[in-house]
Amino acid sequence: MPIDPRGIAGLGARDCGHPVLSGPLLDLDARLDRAFLRLSARWNAAEYRFPPFIRAEHLDRLDYFRSFPHLATFPVALASEASNLRRFAETARGDAAEGVALADVAPIHHVITPAACYHAYVELEGRRLEGPVYLTTRATCCRREAHYELLERQWAFSMREIVCIGSESDVTAFLAEATARIDAWVERLDLGVAWQTAADPFFDPRRNPKYLYQKLEPVKHELVFDGRLAIGSTNFHRSYFGEAFRIRCAGEPAHSGCVAFGIERWIAAFLQRFGASATRWPELEPLDG
Amino acid sequence: MPIDPRGIAGLGARDCGHPVLSGPLLDLDARLDRAFLRLSARWNAAEYRFPPFIRAEHLDRLDYFRSFPHLATFPVALASEASNLRRFAETARGDAAEGVALADVAPIHHVITPAACYHAYVELEGRRLEGPVYLTTRATCCRREAHYELLERQWAFSMREIVCIGSESDVTAFLAEATARIDAWVERLDLGVAWQTAADPFFDPRRNPKYLYQKLEPVKHELVFDGRLAIGSTNFHRSYFGEAFRIRCAGEPAHSGCVAFGIERWIAAFLQRFGASATRWPELEPLDG
Repeated sequence: MPIDPRGIAGLGARDCGHPVLSGPLLDLDARLDRAFLRLSARWNAAEYRFPPFIRAEHLDRLDYFRSFPHLATFPVALASEASNLRRFAETARGDAAEGVALADVAPIHHVITPAACYHAYVELEGRRLEGPVYLTTRATCCRREAHYELLERQWAFSMREIVCIGSESDVTAFLAEATARIDAWVERLDLGVAWQTAADPFFDPRRNPKYLYQKLEPVKHELVFDGRLAIGSTNFHRSYFGEAFRIRCAGEPAHSGCVAFGIERWIAAFLQRFGASATRWPELEPLDG
Repeated sequence: MPIDPRGIAGLGARDCGHPVLSGPLLDLDARLDRAFLRLSARWNAAEYRFPPFIRAEHLDRLDYFRSFPHLATFPVALASEASNLRRFAETARGDAAEGVALADVAPIHHVITPAACYHAYVELEGRRLEGPVYLTTRATCCRREAHYELLERQWAFSMREIVCIGSESDVTAFLAEATARIDAWVERLDLGVAWQTAADPFFDPRRNPKYLYQKLEPVKHELVFDGRLAIGSTNFHRSYFGEAFRIRCAGEPAHSGCVAFGIERWIAAFLQRFGASATRWPELEPLDG
């Protein structure tokens, strides 16, 4: 059932599934994120803040436009000629049912970042790593969907990721340990979640060899709440990003993997599992405890 | 002189002025924001997190498209028909010099929020206030510019705002006290800033009565570093937002005002005033002290 914001202190609802958070829910957001950061400290992961946009040429190297055209959201500005701006200024209607009619637009070189970790591989482009690199970042990610639900399916949403880039064994050990620690934590929380194998939401999946490959040999596991809502995932990329960004480790293209948490979905899970009253939410004891 | 990221620990540079922050600079970002939050606590301002996009119809009520068409950035997705997506998937080139050629786009109903506080007036739409409302929010704001400089002029940037919505005297008292507290703080920091009257960056200003009005009777004051870089501002909106969003207080359209801090510009000011070494940065003693 969709979450009804009435009667939930600190929750407002806008369109496209976007919440307005304040009070106890903004506090829960911060506490959850601190718990994920504490998990990242297990690997001394360095925290980064990356730009909200990523260059289209970088996504293109990942075959993103072929695999996920339906998800992409582009930041688009008007062409800067005064005559073009004046035409727009005189005619634009923000409340038009058919949407704002843009005049000529400036060249589009960016995408609003669709996942927090892509910037990490750009950051390490061309590097030869002496050993595994661990980092963590939180980002507002943007994925267009056919429909939205408050907190559960948002056009733009908050993602915390922990990333490991190194040798194959570095990455598989990282993912195994992260999975075990998250397992122990959600069990203590009694959150009502279970791991499921999954595949990325490819466009036209049956035509995409990457999708078929993921089905044959699962590399994505989702932490699913109530049998229906993925609130986290572990992802083993093999050397996909290492090759695309020429990152090497131990004489080979670097491997990578990440653990991702969808913050608003964790809030949704808390509200549905424990109720709207913050006094009934469990302590977020250290995730690395 | 533009900031050179080489030799500054925790600073990387991407395009459009966007930094990559980690280590001491990400820590400085957090410390500055905590100081601004502590200032907001003087008025018990409630903290909010609003969506990254704002509806175009809401900005239109503020005459935004007529006043600032050159700044606007729209989040744009492709039209969802499979044939359109397939056409894009088969032809899109992320590295094309002329930019990504979008296929048909979905109706555009949003703008990436150009200021943190606009959402506050939407939130209070139609309300009759018993007394002044104080709130604070941090947002990634987006303003297209003709050129960019690392940390100093970014397409997307971080803005912390403190907002007062109430009677005229509530708002003028808030702005006067905020100005005095900031003054005392930047003096103790020895940051090398001074207040200047300013006007918003209107498109085609001489044709815009709002610009002329701002020039005649200044309502915007900027905290200017080194005689050239506005790192904060106070803004007295009179009843402009109150009327647009039918917010009333004391039997009249509510007045409003805000104090805004551009976080990356504060970081730029610290780097240039105190150097790249975190050990030389001053203590951020309580801004409300």
